[in-house]
Amino acid sequence: MEEYGFGRVTIPTDMDIVQETKEVVNRWGADAIRDCDGTDYPDELKNIGVKVYSTYYTTRKDNEWAKANPEEIQQMYIMTSFHNAEKEKLSIHLMDHLYPDMLKVNTRDDIKRWWEVIDRTTGEVVSSDQWSYDEESGCVVIEPASLFHEYTVSFLAYIMWDPVHMYNSVTNGWKDVEHQVTFDVRQPKTRAYSMERLRRFLEKNPHVNVVRFTTFFHQFTLIFDELAREKYVDWYGYSASVSPYILEQFEQEAGYRFRPEFIIDQGYMNNTYRIPSREFRDFQDFQRREVAKLAKEMVDITHEYGREAMMFLGDHWIGMEPFMEEFQSIGLDAVVGSVGNGSTLRLISDIPGVRYTEGRFLPYFFPDVFHEGGDPVKEAKVNWVTARRAILRKPIDRIGYGGYLKLALEFPEFMDYVQSVCEEFRLLYSNIKGTTPYCIKKVAVLNCWGRMRAWGNHMVHHALYYKQNYSYAGIIEALSGAPFAVEFISFDDIRRDEHLLDDIDVIINVGDAGTAYSGGENWIDEKIITAVKKFIYQGGGFIGVGEPAAYQWEGRFFQLATVMGVEEENGFNLNKDKYNWEEHAHFITEDCRGDIDFGEGKKNIFALEGTTVLKQIDKEVQLAVNSFGRGRSVYISGLPYSFENSRLLYRAVLWAASDEANIRHWFSTNYNVEVHAYIKNHKYCVVNNTYEPQSTVVYRGDGSSFCAELDANEIIWYEIE
Amino acid sequence: MEEYGFGRVTIPTDMDIVQETKEVVNRWGADAIRDCDGTDYPDELKNIGVKVYSTYYTTRKDNEWAKANPEEIQQMYIMTSFHNAEKEKLSIHLMDHLYPDMLKVNTRDDIKRWWEVIDRTTGEVVSSDQWSYDEESGCVVIEPASLFHEYTVSFLAYIMWDPVHMYNSVTNGWKDVEHQVTFDVRQPKTRAYSMERLRRFLEKNPHVNVVRFTTFFHQFTLIFDELAREKYVDWYGYSASVSPYILEQFEQEAGYRFRPEFIIDQGYMNNTYRIPSREFRDFQDFQRREVAKLAKEMVDITHEYGREAMMFLGDHWIGMEPFMEEFQSIGLDAVVGSVGNGSTLRLISDIPGVRYTEGRFLPYFFPDVFHEGGDPVKEAKVNWVTARRAILRKPIDRIGYGGYLKLALEFPEFMDYVQSVCEEFRLLYSNIKGTTPYCIKKVAVLNCWGRMRAWGNHMVHHALYYKQNYSYAGIIEALSGAPFAVEFISFDDIRRDEHLLDDIDVIINVGDAGTAYSGGENWIDEKIITAVKKFIYQGGGFIGVGEPAAYQWEGRFFQLATVMGVEEENGFNLNKDKYNWEEHAHFITEDCRGDIDFGEGKKNIFALEGTTVLKQIDKEVQLAVNSFGRGRSVYISGLPYSFENSRLLYRAVLWAASDEANIRHWFSTNYNVEVHAYIKNHKYCVVNNTYEPQSTVVYRGDGSSFCAELDANEIIWYEIE
Repeated sequence: MEEYGFGRVTIPTDMDIVQETKEVVNRWGADAIRDCDGTDYPDELKNIGVKVYSTYYTTRKDNEWAKANPEEIQQMYIMTSFHNAEKEKLSIHLMDHLYPDMLKVNTRDDIKRWWEVIDRTTGEVVSSDQWSYDEESGCVVIEPASLFHEYTVSFLAYIMWDPVHMYNSVTNGWKDVEHQVTFDVRQPKTRAYSMERLRRFLEKNPHVNVVRFTTFFHQFTLIFDELAREKYVDWYGYSASVSPYILEQFEQEAGYRFRPEFIIDQGYMNNTYRIPSREFRDFQDFQRREVAKLAKEMVDITHEYGREAMMFLGDHWIGMEPFMEEFQSIGLDAVVGSVGNGSTLRLISDIPGVRYTEGRFLPYFFPDVFHEGGDPVKEAKVNWVTARRAILRKPIDRIGYGGYLKLALEFPEFMDYVQSVCEEFRLLYSNIKGTTPYCIKKVAVLNCWGRMRAWGNHMVHHALYYKQNYSYAGIIEALSGAPFAVEFISFDDIRRDEHLLDDIDVIINVGDAGTAYSGGENWIDEKIITAVKKFIYQGGGFIGVGEPAAYQWEGRFFQLATVMGVEEENGFNLNKDKYNWEEHAHFITEDCRGDIDFGEGKKNIFALEGTTVLKQIDKEVQLAVNSFGRGRSVYISGLPYSFENSRLLYRAVLWAASDEANIRHWFSTNYNVEVHAYIKNHKYCVVNNTYEPQSTVVYRGDGSSFCAELDANEIIWYEIE
Repeated sequence: MEEYGFGRVTIPTDMDIVQETKEVVNRWGADAIRDCDGTDYPDELKNIGVKVYSTYYTTRKDNEWAKANPEEIQQMYIMTSFHNAEKEKLSIHLMDHLYPDMLKVNTRDDIKRWWEVIDRTTGEVVSSDQWSYDEESGCVVIEPASLFHEYTVSFLAYIMWDPVHMYNSVTNGWKDVEHQVTFDVRQPKTRAYSMERLRRFLEKNPHVNVVRFTTFFHQFTLIFDELAREKYVDWYGYSASVSPYILEQFEQEAGYRFRPEFIIDQGYMNNTYRIPSREFRDFQDFQRREVAKLAKEMVDITHEYGREAMMFLGDHWIGMEPFMEEFQSIGLDAVVGSVGNGSTLRLISDIPGVRYTEGRFLPYFFPDVFHEGGDPVKEAKVNWVTARRAILRKPIDRIGYGGYLKLALEFPEFMDYVQSVCEEFRLLYSNIKGTTPYCIKKVAVLNCWGRMRAWGNHMVHHALYYKQNYSYAGIIEALSGAPFAVEFISFDDIRRDEHLLDDIDVIINVGDAGTAYSGGENWIDEKIITAVKKFIYQGGGFIGVGEPAAYQWEGRFFQLATVMGVEEENGFNLNKDKYNWEEHAHFITEDCRGDIDFGEGKKNIFALEGTTVLKQIDKEVQLAVNSFGRGRSVYISGLPYSFENSRLLYRAVLWAASDEANIRHWFSTNYNVEVHAYIKNHKYCVVNNTYEPQSTVVYRGDGSSFCAELDANEIIWYEIE
């Protein structure tokens, strides 16, 4: 593999490992070196023929400026918890359960304009002359309050300790570190200053080839409680992107008066599970445009100095929205992001309009993993093999690592393993570069967000496991490495043009009732429901997972009950006798061994007459199929990611698309092994996703087949003859 | 026990067992004999000093009349299934999936007035000139239909085979039995005829002392499918109590135009889980008044002939509503009903305003149980012991059996066992007669129905098990034999007068979100929510089971989240970190052995800060307690009936009422044994609810205690000294 011996790899360094860094550059074939939070870049490595990345913090690491301009410190909207009025005078302490050093109540701006006290029993806003704020006690006092009503206060607070800096400090036990304040580049003084500051940085650091913006202007929502524990996290949250300065601009653009509730959203903070309100969408649109404009200014400056501009997809990334059109206008050269699994890999590699993308792989070289007894090789393997499925569908252009290289050097097996990963990646990249891998079907994930939340469906925080969403996120993870063209479409997309369904084979709707991912009342929009039904009736496929198309309306909870042939018992159908419980063998479950893992599953799903039940547990349908006109539908109660479930979904897509006859093309009979073909490059590969050897029969595109034996994790490349 | 040797017992008889009947009269101490469906009353038993009951069918067993007056045959509203419009011309065959012999489409009345075709995609009524009925094909044809919309037809059908008669025929395999048609006593000709018919019966049967009306005028909803299987059953259903004749009267009373949808209710047919609409309540009110008026006429005639009028609580009982005030105006002497468990016992014994109540116990003397290898003793024991708990709280006045006595005679052990039951019942009755048993607390079950569905909460069909409701019905079953005064109150009751809460110790709200039993949007009625919160805050107790007080509104799914300290994760709270999972030992769970059975439980319940979690499974809270002001709240995810769970509920009530210190009064340490005190009669009993011997410590009302050993099922009576 020597021909692929160099490039496409970024490594970290530090002051005291100059020689070792050079050796790793050679061993791993690295062509870029970076600094990290907590490391410095050694002079000796400035001119050794590799690119130099430098993290650049636009919104922090300049407390002098922040303290001199306290009115331009970033702010966030916070809602207090619910307070019950037991007396007519109700005091609500704003900073309860919040980490006191992180936030500071903003009384600088007009609190009567920018705060809101709401009677959550009635939903009414409390008149601003019925409440006051007592600065000394830190309490809002409501008087008169209605007895036994509950109240909340929505208020603005300054971010006095950058949440990511706080997280890093707390997690790593950093002592005596000054809290980094987050300043707001959107505001006029800081904006001007920040452009100067960037120029100064570029001038002072001529050795830096790539400015790695970490990140731009607004932190995703991250709040800590009084014990410094995480209290609230939303990787997609916009509530820390606000200030009266910004909101007044928003009002002008939107043409209506801003209300704090547009952001507060009853305390749900417009998280991605909420069906977005018009006002919140307007606000996001506004932020996207403004953030893109400002980011472009910084990127332009970077280019002016002949450097590349790379964005870290995380931390202060809010408003950047890489799948929306404004993003491409910014002119970024690259995006780098942390790779947690296949979905997060695609979240990076699918970004259009940048010259290259880079994935930062795990483990991060930190003492939590790199300590005596730690097993960094295992973590690296899991991370690589999980992400590789997705890379084979849509490659990132580079891979990289971060942290303290010195720690990794103490694990020679790890150094060897990463070397093999680097080689494997380069070979892979060279084989598939410039091609679109063979896609057997085109699949569209339908929800309220569409492409804006592409690959991030059911994500709360980066690639983390949440009990209530993992069996939904499993669908997205399976898709990230499946041989399908995957689109993310929204109900609004269909409303705009239902013909966008014309070239789609299978629509997937996955999520809980009432969430943005299932779609809620969109399903009783006549235009939506008839467009989807027509699509299926005319031969399209539909896969519903969890509570698809769910909204209680006109005798149905599942608005596609007729199509899917299943309905959810909500107590209103108990009087109806249900006889359809017999399970049937089926194409979709042919590769299942033993019990299927439906994850959280769903309770109380029953089949209508004529539906083919594939699996029910204790008279609750988990998997069922149905026909509708020339189309077909598959209901799945939940599907956590696993190789077996990934195969089940693959079969479900083929069956829903009425194309089960074609399954043996670019196909492995053993579901632990996958086959990807790159027709244009005359290559295909067979890849073992497991940590054990595997045998399989591989089917080529012409239906011919051969037996293959693969080592653990092995990927074998073949020519298409 | 000889002094209690006679009376309070009814037995069946038949033509060929005259001598045996007399012997059973003596052995069991029976003082009444009855005929049954399928038996005749022998002349020789007409004057032997016991009362004679005769079943009397007001609405069937007179096909000659029915056929001569086809326009007065009873009718029911039926909704077809949902039909998707794939073409502009949509045909819907009305009788699909209905047993053809049972129903006949009513085209006699104006179908354009009494039928309704609804576009279920939009919820709009289809104009009557857009559809027609083709009598020959049996189809409603809609034209033009909107493509991919779904349509239903609501229509009236005559009941050509009485559903209970059909059920009996099918179940017992009766051959060559003419289908009994149900005629409508409410209609003018049949009404006049029925009064005459009753008089004729009374004149012809002077030996009959008690007319056992089986029943009055309207059958609960019971429909069979094309395979003669039960298709739809609602023991509380009103949809077979309709006819244009009745509905026109209703319109006059209500003052607004009737719509079939008032009954059809999107196909949910206003079952008791549905939050009742105003129109349906109006219709029920109207029916209650009209049915009571007409029943009174028949009762008056019965009295005129010097006989007693007894109502069977079942079959055609719709509109009689024994807990509503009209019922008492009818003048019935007695109510008899089938006893399936404790709840159904109280459904009979709690009926106010009749001279006596009678429970018909199981097993019914039918070949399904009384065959070689059958174990009727076991069934009888389970039935008796299960019901006895409730009898000890509120006794029925008589017990009885039904079926073919001849079959029972072949099981001498059964005959012996029932003899012991008769003796035990008479002793019990004499000990507690005229007293109110000692009640440690007053408990109110709060829902949309209140007393109208007293003891029938979560009932679909008589005492049958439904997966989705048994863990809720378990609460009612536990209450049926618990030492509490139990009230059933509605949200409307609170709206009318919130002071009705003043003398209640604990409110219980049990059910699934959106159902009439949980309460739905009643919980965002400011008057309701503040009244309940005030009640608790001032010292009241609240027990919420399942999804209590659930309605998505202003940042909460559980509107009492602050009070209960728990909330349901619906996807909108995933961003909030949840740290309160530690389980605590507690007064409520002190008697639990091993795992608590929460039945279906509930998914995704989490505890707010400060709440005391007693039990969580896989990070889903099943049992938690919380304080609110001086009051207390208990959350339970579900609680199927068992002796152990009954004890858990007992403790929950005491704790919620802040009275756990008083638990050792009229109390058994062993939860398989219960203690009931009848202060006025100076009696108390200790009762073993199990089929094995039990040891326990019994606490008297003064706190003194003693050890007791009880045989299987034993009840021991003591004097209060």
